[in-house]
Amino acid sequence: MSRLIDELRKLPGIGTKSAQRLAFHVLRSSDADARALAEAILVLRQKLQLCSICNNITDVDPCVYCSNPVRDQHVVCVVEEPTNIATIEKTRSYNGVYHVLHGTLSPIGGVGPEQLRITSLLSRLTDGQAAEVAEDAGGVSLSSGASLEPETLVREVILATSPTTEGEATAAYLAQEIRRVAPTVRITRIATGVPAGSDIEYADEVTMTRALEGRHEF
Amino acid sequence: MSRLIDELRKLPGIGTKSAQRLAFHVLRSSDADARALAEAILVLRQKLQLCSICNNITDVDPCVYCSNPVRDQHVVCVVEEPTNIATIEKTRSYNGVYHVLHGTLSPIGGVGPEQLRITSLLSRLTDGQAAEVAEDAGGVSLSSGASLEPETLVREVILATSPTTEGEATAAYLAQEIRRVAPTVRITRIATGVPAGSDIEYADEVTMTRALEGRHEF
Repeated sequence: MSRLIDELRKLPGIGTKSAQRLAFHVLRSSDADARALAEAILVLRQKLQLCSICNNITDVDPCVYCSNPVRDQHVVCVVEEPTNIATIEKTRSYNGVYHVLHGTLSPIGGVGPEQLRITSLLSRLTDGQAAEVAEDAGGVSLSSGASLEPETLVREVILATSPTTEGEATAAYLAQEIRRVAPTVRITRIATGVPAGSDIEYADEVTMTRALEGRHEF
Repeated sequence: MSRLIDELRKLPGIGTKSAQRLAFHVLRSSDADARALAEAILVLRQKLQLCSICNNITDVDPCVYCSNPVRDQHVVCVVEEPTNIATIEKTRSYNGVYHVLHGTLSPIGGVGPEQLRITSLLSRLTDGQAAEVAEDAGGVSLSSGASLEPETLVREVILATSPTTEGEATAAYLAQEIRRVAPTVRITRIATGVPAGSDIEYADEVTMTRALEGRHEF
């Protein structure tokens, strides 16, 4: 019993009291229910993996976004965490693909560029570019025989890291790296401004400055 | 005593209890203090007025923004209330002038275009335009004799109403009216997006949609 309580306490937001309550619930529940919970935990770790293209958490590789022919594979939205994909999907206004960094640059937290999935992002951009360059150089004869697919060439990278200190620093670093390896790719940043439905009276100075700087033609 | 309590209760955010506490404070305070408070209330109503150009609350006419030669009189930022000016001034990033609407369009609240200071905004735009047109038509001879000053011609109107339902409706109405009377004036809208310092995880769907739509070159 105390072993289960100790394990449950490791979960985020679960203290000793909650862990005890959960453990007692398991004790009183049916054998099938307890087994189902234990199996679900095991299966989660066994089946779920990172998508080999975008690093999203998935049970099939490539993930549902990377393998969807209806989605625009030329636009890549870079996010910090897999949960951010859900936030963007909920808008129903984005039809491109994703790239998950699994964190943000944080010198204080000891997170450098090598701890994030940046190399795989850059190679996604340069792979397509190499195909295009090869075609340009080789002329018409190569187009049918080329194994690389120029239609997967990324045209735009949307930097959708949060407008926090770490998120901004990460976006700036990524923009610099992307420009270095793939200078033709369009790099955009999501808008910072007054949130929808909010009165500008409650906007802080930085947000208001960004809202003014980022004003657009009506 | 009860007369003062009744009067104080009319103030926003002051209930009977607070009004009593304030009234007792006045009772216990010195004669000079009580007189100073009463006079400050009277003077506020006597001295303060609306700026004849921008409708900001001011003790001198035109107000400090409209009469400041260092400020760019060609850019007009349209706000709902005089307090919004303080919000924008705090950013220290805006150097144009203002126009206060004193409200937003609200069909439910019975606020139509005629209840807002829209006519004076439109005449600010067309006065300058008329001067330009007159000059164009009359040729060189008019430029020195013209009483209207073409240098006060408004080039850009920033619609800085809040991104609320009423604020957006007001901005859309204003844009339509401005285009009708002064088609050459640039009309811009402040950015809606994820607020600075906030995680995109907490962005609602509308804000996230706007942040994606309003993305800019990095």
